[in-house]
Amino acid sequence: MSAVAEKVNVKPLADRVLVQAAPAEEKTAFGIIIPDTAKEKPQRGTVVAVGPGKKDEPITVKVGDTILYGKYAGTEITVEGQEYLIMRESDIFAII
Amino acid sequence: MSAVAEKVNVKPLADRVLVQAAPAEEKTAFGIIIPDTAKEKPQRGTVVAVGPGKKDEPITVKVGDTILYGKYAGTEITVEGQEYLIMRESDIFAII
Amino acid sequence: MSAVAEKVNVKPLADRVLVQAAPAEEKTAFGIIIPDTAKEKPQRGTVVAVGPGKKDEPITVKVGDTILYGKYAGTEITVEGQEYLIMRESDIFAII
Amino acid sequence: MSAVAEKVNVKPLADRVLVQAAPAEEKTAFGIIIPDTAKEKPQRGTVVAVGPGKKDEPITVKVGDTILYGKYAGTEITVEGQEYLIMRESDIFAII
Amino acid sequence: MSAVAEKVNVKPLADRVLVQAAPAEEKTAFGIIIPDTAKEKPQRGTVVAVGPGKKDEPITVKVGDTILYGKYAGTEITVEGQEYLIMRESDIFAII
Amino acid sequence: MSAVAEKVNVKPLADRVLVQAAPAEEKTAFGIIIPDTAKEKPQRGTVVAVGPGKKDEPITVKVGDTILYGKYAGTEITVEGQEYLIMRESDIFAII
Amino acid sequence: MSAVAEKVNVKPLADRVLVQAAPAEEKTAFGIIIPDTAKEKPQRGTVVAVGPGKKDEPITVKVGDTILYGKYAGTEITVEGQEYLIMRESDIFAII
Repeated sequence: MSAVAEKVNVKPLADRVLVQAAPAEEKTAFGIIIPDTAKEKPQRGTVVAVGPGKKDEPITVKVGDTILYGKYAGTEITVEGQEYLIMRESDIFAII
Repeated sequence: MSAVAEKVNVKPLADRVLVQAAPAEEKTAFGIIIPDTAKEKPQRGTVVAVGPGKKDEPITVKVGDTILYGKYAGTEITVEGQEYLIMRESDIFAII
Repeated sequence: MSAVAEKVNVKPLADRVLVQAAPAEEKTAFGIIIPDTAKEKPQRGTVVAVGPGKKDEPITVKVGDTILYGKYAGTEITVEGQEYLIMRESDIFAII
Repeated sequence: MSAVAEKVNVKPLADRVLVQAAPAEEKTAFGIIIPDTAKEKPQRGTVVAVGPGKKDEPITVKVGDTILYGKYAGTEITVEGQEYLIMRESDIFAII
Repeated sequence: MSAVAEKVNVKPLADRVLVQAAPAEEKTAFGIIIPDTAKEKPQRGTVVAVGPGKKDEPITVKVGDTILYGKYAGTEITVEGQEYLIMRESDIFAII
Repeated sequence: MSAVAEKVNVKPLADRVLVQAAPAEEKTAFGIIIPDTAKEKPQRGTVVAVGPGKKDEPITVKVGDTILYGKYAGTEITVEGQEYLIMRESDIFAII
Repeated sequence: MSAVAEKVNVKPLADRVLVQAAPAEEKTAFGIIIPDTAKEKPQRGTVVAVGPGKKDEPITVKVGDTILYGKYAGTEITVEGQEYLIMRESDIFAII
């Protein structure tokens, strides 16, 4: 998997964000290690698509951003054979 | 079932959307595969009718849009012998 | 029971709507069939009286409209020997 | 008990309404019959006193109105030997 | 205990009201009798001190008002050997 | 312990208030006695530090005020060997 | 660990704050001792990064501030081999 996710034909609604989760084993250039308790489901991913935001609440993250999110954030969906998470932007903690 | 749903004589209220769910076995031109755990109740469908929206919240999806929605979204109703789901637009994740 | 409900001397308050439920066995000109699980309590009815709406939220349905509503919507009341449901307009899904 | 409640020296606060419940056995001129399941605690009553309303929400019902309300609405209070219900106006369904 | 509570050195905050509960046995000039189920904890009392109100919600009751309140309203506090209830004004039903 | 708390190097955020609880046995000049059920954890204390308030909601209590608060209000923290409670101002009932 | 946390390449979103928790055994120059019940998970830390705030709610704490927070505040994340807590600013009680 490259650091930059391929373009996907999905348009999230409102404040939703499509995220490609990082594999659980990965150790990045930034030296981030996923804590033990989260091994099965990583808390780090790459933004693949963003919604238009809600009234008075524009979306902050951009396609390509590497993000940290809550362990139970989002819903898994499979598009073109690739698994993604679709979550609300409020489920995202930080950009790294 | 064709990709374009037939016109149905149902006018959803407020922020509600009438959706024709895709059959669980279907594999579309986009190559989307429904994940295993969702086989019984697909999470993809076609918008058949939309409400007028709520005050300050216009409806974003249009009739004919193919959408992804939550596994437990909406209520099943049967109109003219055809099953549909009627859900709030906030139950819809993305347009594909 | 005719398709058009008789005028009833009840004035719903705020966003409430008085509804005459369709009999469970009925099969209308539109060919709508009530799904099996809802046989005892139909989800279709006719609007008999509407409230004035709430501040900034006018009522959308009109007397005479045939509507679809949630299986557990409203409270049963009996007026002049006839059973009705009194519900909030937000419990109504669509006009058919 | 007459149809018009006697004036009572109680001033409800805000959106509260003082209601004199109709006896469970009563059958009015309008032919309203209380449904079986509600025999012990009637759902019909007469407005005896109303509060001044809340900010931007004036009171709609008037003293003397015959109203329908939810089976579990309000709190029972006894004033001058007479039992009343004190409830919020939002617990009232309709004026009949 | 006199009908008019003595002045107490307590300044309630915001929308809070200090109330001196009427004894459970008392039968007032107005003939109000506390219902059986409430004997242990009367629902009637006298306002002893009021807060300044909240933003856009001034306090309605005044010191000296005889009020009706919910059976579980407020918190008991003891000041100068006298028991009081401190409650929010929204816990008060009516002035009598 | 003196009636006036010593200055503490803690700056509460938003609508939070730092409180030094009165010892359970104490009987003040005002003759306030803590009710039996609250002996272990007094409901009276002295304000030691206040936050800047929230948008449109300035803080009402001042450093040095003796206050009454709910039995379960706040969180215990220890600063410079002294135990305090840090609570929201809405947990405070009254100034005495 | 120095009193000033090293700069970390994490940009919290909205009202989130990245915090480096103080070791449980530490006794600072201010003489603060962590209470017994919180030994395993200290309630004191240093702000390492702050989000841009939310609409009409700017962030109050600054990088380098020593703060007190609730025992169950935030989510643990590991960045560059160092454990942090990421929490909402409303989970922070005070700056010390």
